[in-house]
Amino acid sequence: MLASCHAAAARLIFERLKKNGRPEIPRKTIYRLSIYLRCLARLRENGIGTVSSEALAKAAGVKPTQLRKDLAYFGTFGTRGLGYDVADLFRKISEELGTSRLQPVILVGVGHLGLALVSYRGFEKEGFEIVAAFDAEPSRKRDKEIKQPIYGMDELAEFVQRQNVKMAILTVPAIAAQEVANRLIGAGITGILNFSPIVLSVPEEVMVNNVNLAIELENLSYFTQE
Amino acid sequence: MLASCHAAAARLIFERLKKNGRPEIPRKTIYRLSIYLRCLARLRENGIGTVSSEALAKAAGVKPTQLRKDLAYFGTFGTRGLGYDVADLFRKISEELGTSRLQPVILVGVGHLGLALVSYRGFEKEGFEIVAAFDAEPSRKRDKEIKQPIYGMDELAEFVQRQNVKMAILTVPAIAAQEVANRLIGAGITGILNFSPIVLSVPEEVMVNNVNLAIELENLSYFTQE
Repeated sequence: MLASCHAAAARLIFERLKKNGRPEIPRKTIYRLSIYLRCLARLRENGIGTVSSEALAKAAGVKPTQLRKDLAYFGTFGTRGLGYDVADLFRKISEELGTSRLQPVILVGVGHLGLALVSYRGFEKEGFEIVAAFDAEPSRKRDKEIKQPIYGMDELAEFVQRQNVKMAILTVPAIAAQEVANRLIGAGITGILNFSPIVLSVPEEVMVNNVNLAIELENLSYFTQE
Repeated sequence: MLASCHAAAARLIFERLKKNGRPEIPRKTIYRLSIYLRCLARLRENGIGTVSSEALAKAAGVKPTQLRKDLAYFGTFGTRGLGYDVADLFRKISEELGTSRLQPVILVGVGHLGLALVSYRGFEKEGFEIVAAFDAEPSRKRDKEIKQPIYGMDELAEFVQRQNVKMAILTVPAIAAQEVANRLIGAGITGILNFSPIVLSVPEEVMVNNVNLAIELENLSYFTQE
């Protein structure tokens, strides 16, 4: 009964991860790469060709030593006195993050939240395409039309394998979440963005990022008390 | 131009926060309180009256020393040999987090995501009630009915002050987000759960928790590469 709290905490708190025999990269480094990428995109949009590590670090709100350390994990170094080539560093980070090409993602659970996320245009801009949605009741009448097909759960495994999909957004009710996660993992999904308010038990090689809206509100609540 | 990346990074990375002259409480401690609370809720549902710090720490996936340290910030200590009274510790943590009573929250920006969140039943269970929604076009036809009233932006300040609301969920388009945030803060909001994919500039006493779905996917993407 208590076991299921464990994983939640571990995933909120753990710091270091292994990946394919590489040295362990701190998870925060990966998050910071996303921030560097956004800063570089902004520089590029403004026609700026090179940036010093000091300027980029300042923009990202980190110390220059932190920036250099983060990039060194991936064998990327600026040129002394010249700094980083903006387009080049953008491309390298984007390749590291796997967002240099549009990546297919599926969504499972087409309720209110799922429906909203399927139509959310923010993903595509960032390199992700929700290619299909799955639901236990695919043909149930829904509040609005979506451009993606909605398939039944029976079609999930074949679709994932055929399209080589690795990532899934999970928006099913809590009671169904673990069973659906098992099916996703069985089909070959290795990354799950979990909106269901439960803690998923998954094998070590599968990554779950939890978006727990209630915990975020609770955290804010602490700081807004008088 | 680069300045606006800064705050994002700072908020992702910063660790310690001040609150009302108390010693600085690490932000991770506040997140862990949410996890302890969920473990205690589960114990309570199962009729368990007391729990040792070792058992509770294990359930939460932390070391017993960590649990004791976290609770000591709030002057809470177990009884040697007896551990913690489950109901008592639940109530204390809930009071610390400000969730012991139902807290009013407003939502601003009733697009697809806003509409989904307004109807999301997960919040109330956790102590939050979305009491009203606001939108630049309150009477625009929407995909579905919601139980909350939708007001125009002109009514925001008065509502927030009259109802003493401190927390807001921000789901407006990126282009409007900063201006709306300014209005919220001007009206007395001190905690913002921000879904807009931009970095808000806010005064030091205002807390912003960002839910950036694209960054979560990007982070997963790194780990799902072959």
